[in-house]
Amino acid sequence: MNKKIEELKLKAASLTRQTHELGIPIMILFEGMPASGKTRLSNELLLTFDAKYTQFISTKSPQYEDLRYQFLQKYWNTLPQKGHINIYFRSWYSHFLDYKENGIKQAYYKKSEKLVNQIKSFETMLQNDNYELIKFYIEVSEEKRQEHIQQTKDNPLMKWKVQEYEQVIPNETYLAEMRKFTHKDNQWEVIDYTQREVAFEKMYKHIIERLENAIKKSKRQQANKDGAFSKDFSTNMFDVKFEKISKKEYKEMIEPLQKRMREIQFALYERKIPLILTFEGMDAAGKGGNIKRIREKLDPTGYEVNGISAPTDVELAHHYLWRFAKEMPKTGHLEIFDRSWYGRVLVERVEGFADKEEWKRAYHEINEFEKMWTDEGAILLKFFLCLDKDEQLKRFKDREQDPNKQWKITDEDWRNRDKWDLYLEASHDMIKYTDTNYAPWFIVPADHKKTARVEVLKYIIRQCEKVLWGVKDY
Amino acid sequence: MNKKIEELKLKAASLTRQTHELGIPIMILFEGMPASGKTRLSNELLLTFDAKYTQFISTKSPQYEDLRYQFLQKYWNTLPQKGHINIYFRSWYSHFLDYKENGIKQAYYKKSEKLVNQIKSFETMLQNDNYELIKFYIEVSEEKRQEHIQQTKDNPLMKWKVQEYEQVIPNETYLAEMRKFTHKDNQWEVIDYTQREVAFEKMYKHIIERLENAIKKSKRQQANKDGAFSKDFSTNMFDVKFEKISKKEYKEMIEPLQKRMREIQFALYERKIPLILTFEGMDAAGKGGNIKRIREKLDPTGYEVNGISAPTDVELAHHYLWRFAKEMPKTGHLEIFDRSWYGRVLVERVEGFADKEEWKRAYHEINEFEKMWTDEGAILLKFFLCLDKDEQLKRFKDREQDPNKQWKITDEDWRNRDKWDLYLEASHDMIKYTDTNYAPWFIVPADHKKTARVEVLKYIIRQCEKVLWGVKDY
Repeated sequence: MNKKIEELKLKAASLTRQTHELGIPIMILFEGMPASGKTRLSNELLLTFDAKYTQFISTKSPQYEDLRYQFLQKYWNTLPQKGHINIYFRSWYSHFLDYKENGIKQAYYKKSEKLVNQIKSFETMLQNDNYELIKFYIEVSEEKRQEHIQQTKDNPLMKWKVQEYEQVIPNETYLAEMRKFTHKDNQWEVIDYTQREVAFEKMYKHIIERLENAIKKSKRQQANKDGAFSKDFSTNMFDVKFEKISKKEYKEMIEPLQKRMREIQFALYERKIPLILTFEGMDAAGKGGNIKRIREKLDPTGYEVNGISAPTDVELAHHYLWRFAKEMPKTGHLEIFDRSWYGRVLVERVEGFADKEEWKRAYHEINEFEKMWTDEGAILLKFFLCLDKDEQLKRFKDREQDPNKQWKITDEDWRNRDKWDLYLEASHDMIKYTDTNYAPWFIVPADHKKTARVEVLKYIIRQCEKVLWGVKDY
Repeated sequence: MNKKIEELKLKAASLTRQTHELGIPIMILFEGMPASGKTRLSNELLLTFDAKYTQFISTKSPQYEDLRYQFLQKYWNTLPQKGHINIYFRSWYSHFLDYKENGIKQAYYKKSEKLVNQIKSFETMLQNDNYELIKFYIEVSEEKRQEHIQQTKDNPLMKWKVQEYEQVIPNETYLAEMRKFTHKDNQWEVIDYTQREVAFEKMYKHIIERLENAIKKSKRQQANKDGAFSKDFSTNMFDVKFEKISKKEYKEMIEPLQKRMREIQFALYERKIPLILTFEGMDAAGKGGNIKRIREKLDPTGYEVNGISAPTDVELAHHYLWRFAKEMPKTGHLEIFDRSWYGRVLVERVEGFADKEEWKRAYHEINEFEKMWTDEGAILLKFFLCLDKDEQLKRFKDREQDPNKQWKITDEDWRNRDKWDLYLEASHDMIKYTDTNYAPWFIVPADHKKTARVEVLKYIIRQCEKVLWGVKDY
């Protein structure tokens, strides 16, 4: 390699040490035809950057098990943490073409624009969270490309690898489709690999430019933590009432509902439909008790409960949606979230962990996020359990007195109670901005525990029956 | 459920809150024939314990992708962290029978005792690290069992599930094989589910007893951090020398070796043999440079480098081998560890992060751990790069003066240098106790960088050629 490239390389490496220290996550994508030279370019970067924080992610044709998850699942799971670098050998664009050309999940993605929109949402979300996305498209003269292929074929230990070039999408299709992306989206840097050294130089120059910008931007940023609440907030959103049921009625109703819920679980499993249930609500509103009633008769091999508490170090070092995305159910499975990604616009807003710009942006991000799963036929239901302030006090006191329940009540619960109005306003805004037709909120008056449990179960069953058998009423 | 069971249940739940606080990890296994009642018992526990720290792990017949990993891989990956509870619906015992009865990996496991030994090592390692293992074997009268099956068959939404009962190992085989385990190993609690309430009571009583013991044991323990070094340590173990090569020789040799290494990579891939390379050595001995020369011409989709630094919170909350086990390569892939699990007997011993009993036990644990992979045909090579103390000083100073290398040298490096003798003794003991014929150490005098790089590459190539083609000499 010539001296100029060596210098660029040193400079790029040194910049990545800065992005590492500043905690900027970097994602570098390589797309291009087989044998176009993207292996050499991406490998060059992999060898140049520090192995301690650089990861190589390659996209292959999805296997059966992969297809049981959401289209972007793999990319969520492997998202780089702050200060780390992912190099993508092929990316969600190749993955998209795989879906499109092989007619994967046709029932949901007949219109491939849905997937394009998901990609756009995904990239925007990440960029808004200061992920630096660098996209390379590698071209090469056909002559050179055939030369590369011949080199591989000539080696007896490697010739079997040539088949791999033929497994993927037909070249013409790949070319035509990728051209649509690179023409429309000026974030792509197109590199011609026909002259190797020119290609290396161009790649490094582009990376240096992008890293320098990212570093400047990161230094400029000043956190501006501001919850932004109106001083005299009031809403009648939570003034919903259920007709209270008696102890006797409860006893008669709960078991048949639970058994029906179990049948629903099996029907969803057979039809490969994932179900996502999300619970939010005031402390002591009975989220845990509700979840318990839902799962009591379920087959434990088909569901999971995800109790969300404060994020760990590693979770904090990722996009805030990462820790939820990687827990999403595969087809036919049920995932219950006891608190969820809505923490972003609730506790993080109230406590100032997210700044105003971040939590305001989150409404749209969450809507886009949820859509990725409902796009593929997932049923996503969201419950907000609301409680009268006096009733909460009563329950707190009960808990303190019952030796079997004392562990449930902590100082934090009392502190949260002091911020009742702030939580109320945050909850109101949350429901207002994220109540979509594909992932609706169900407001549950929870002052009467038994009534709430029955109503939640009835609602879940009814929504699932609608999807499963077109049932209209319960 | 009767009142007595309700009381036992409350007590068990309350004990798990204590084990949670004390950071004791609990693993509860359920084995038993299909429809014997183990779903009901395990589900009972799942519903009783707090969902925030209780996980349900079910074992199914392994899929193609699962078989590309080590026999116990799934159980390593899902190991509970401190204070958490895993409930296993079927376990590594069923998994073992799957391997044995279906002749999985026959080339390696013709003698199924090898797998039994792995299970034993795995359980012992965990128990020594205060993991509480509770093993239930569920029996039931054949009449009751048929009743359970009939109940499922009678429900139109669930009858398809009955096939699942037939997919697994033939009942007689399962019974006979499991009996061997439960008879030999008194850690099993056998429960007859024919009378449901008796079974619940027995289960809870056993769990309560085990949790109480675990709590007592945990409270008794006092950390006794003691490195235990001899004051005047000397060894000639590291007095190895290579014949120094010239710059010119290096230039001629390195590229052919790297190209050969690439061919080896593809040959291993084709033969589905995983390769694990582990690098330890003094600071500035050139681990990074060595690794770089090995990977320079490799296909980046087939290998990973794992740079090991201080463990994260989540890693610290697991068995110390967990973070390495989950990075082990699948068949045909190459994993390079830049520092490794040997940290247990090096830095953890020297700095007192592990107490004497822990690091002394680690030699045997590590040997057993490595054997799990070599048992399945993995090639595991370990390199110790040793450096003269003066040469290290020279390299430290060079690094401080070169603006492109300054980041490589930290205060910690200087602090470690002060403990040179302690590290030397720890390294000596490490090699002495873990140099096995299935995972040998290669001591690399690293005072001359180029020579070391060539010798390491030659050694790897030679070892792989032996396995691949029975080659005897390079």
